[in-house]
Amino acid sequence: MVGTGPGSIEHITPRAVRAIADADIVVGYKTYLELIPELLKDKEVLSSQMMQEVERCRRAVTLAADGKQVALICGGDPGIYAMAGLTYEVVMEIAPTVKVEIIPGLAALNSCAARLGAPLMHDFAAISLSDLLTPMELIEKRLEAAAMADFVMVIYNPKSKKRTSQLLKAQEIALKYRKPETPVGIVTAATRANETIALTTLAQLHQAEVGMQSTVIIGNSTTYTWQGVMITPRGYHTKYTLGKE
Amino acid sequence: MVGTGPGSIEHITPRAVRAIADADIVVGYKTYLELIPELLKDKEVLSSQMMQEVERCRRAVTLAADGKQVALICGGDPGIYAMAGLTYEVVMEIAPTVKVEIIPGLAALNSCAARLGAPLMHDFAAISLSDLLTPMELIEKRLEAAAMADFVMVIYNPKSKKRTSQLLKAQEIALKYRKPETPVGIVTAATRANETIALTTLAQLHQAEVGMQSTVIIGNSTTYTWQGVMITPRGYHTKYTLGKE
Repeated sequence: MVGTGPGSIEHITPRAVRAIADADIVVGYKTYLELIPELLKDKEVLSSQMMQEVERCRRAVTLAADGKQVALICGGDPGIYAMAGLTYEVVMEIAPTVKVEIIPGLAALNSCAARLGAPLMHDFAAISLSDLLTPMELIEKRLEAAAMADFVMVIYNPKSKKRTSQLLKAQEIALKYRKPETPVGIVTAATRANETIALTTLAQLHQAEVGMQSTVIIGNSTTYTWQGVMITPRGYHTKYTLGKE
Repeated sequence: MVGTGPGSIEHITPRAVRAIADADIVVGYKTYLELIPELLKDKEVLSSQMMQEVERCRRAVTLAADGKQVALICGGDPGIYAMAGLTYEVVMEIAPTVKVEIIPGLAALNSCAARLGAPLMHDFAAISLSDLLTPMELIEKRLEAAAMADFVMVIYNPKSKKRTSQLLKAQEIALKYRKPETPVGIVTAATRANETIALTTLAQLHQAEVGMQSTVIIGNSTTYTWQGVMITPRGYHTKYTLGKE
């Protein structure tokens, strides 16, 4: 399982590059493979379309069971809301002797936080708003808990074409505990050609441009903005002093 | 601000390597600089000791204000519980025209999750147990909220030589909501020569070897172990079926 990060080839680790180079065959979703053409020259490649995750995994594991060294490509970090778990489940079911190595990549939370400044200097909760595999009641319970305990909130899968109400619900819940002017950052397609970065406030979040490739970060009670960046101080006490040390 | 990831040179992105190559001067904590000797050949280097973070930042920002291109090195990801925020604060205070770019790296949560298998396939909360800058009451409130709402919990700064009670408190709080057999993973010094990986249970956590370089991941109610890896399924419904698609 090879994590290729946010998209730009500059953010792929040498370990991931080597895993691709060493593989007999590279398996992956077409969109991710198209981001790394330099790494796929002279490689045997099996590309597939969206929504065929399980089939893709089964093919990769079957090839590995046949003795091939397989690089299964995953955008972002395979270990964060991604394919690492499914891969183990498939191995468990159809080929328990296949060896799996997870090679981490930069996840959306790493690259989006970097683009926004320093929003994740303190405790945070990552919450996916996709209710495909998780009941909405549990998602709401988590939003409530995270908002109440002043976690910075990193929202994955905030919205799709069909699914728009969950982000409004997240906004509503956060507003119960946080000021309307709480900074919110939205990064779409981080590091790619079509990247956009926007800062808004919790009160204005419903008017922001948010899509399927977006990650939304809602600040905690201490988060502020300065010259277009979003900063969460690293503590509540001030035991360190900037002026003298 | 250059994130150099968990330690091994294989996990540093080309973007980070280029930032170091392009810099007039490299500033960083000695221990992190010693992990990347290949990148520092023929570079001007300003190295410093632990607990001088503010001074290090001030030196870097002052050099930048004097017109130097500075690479300020940070292990892990500067954007996650690290130096990105402090850097902005120092810039704001002493040299507001200095331009800052945050170059993300693999954080402890990325590399530790990868070493453990697939613990972060679902919502998680990152919580630091260091009470140096945060009141213990707030840390407890967050532990309680995260445990109650079934977040996987990623514990940063679980323990130091002087500070041992917080991890026991975290265990106690988690046990109020989770089964004693809940899997817990502990990764120490991920990807370095002295790396250790351990799996235990919530009930046994107090007996585990945990140190200053450790990250602790406590599973949610669905997390299980298989052949030495820790897996959190990606959903609660089972709308996808492994057997057929």
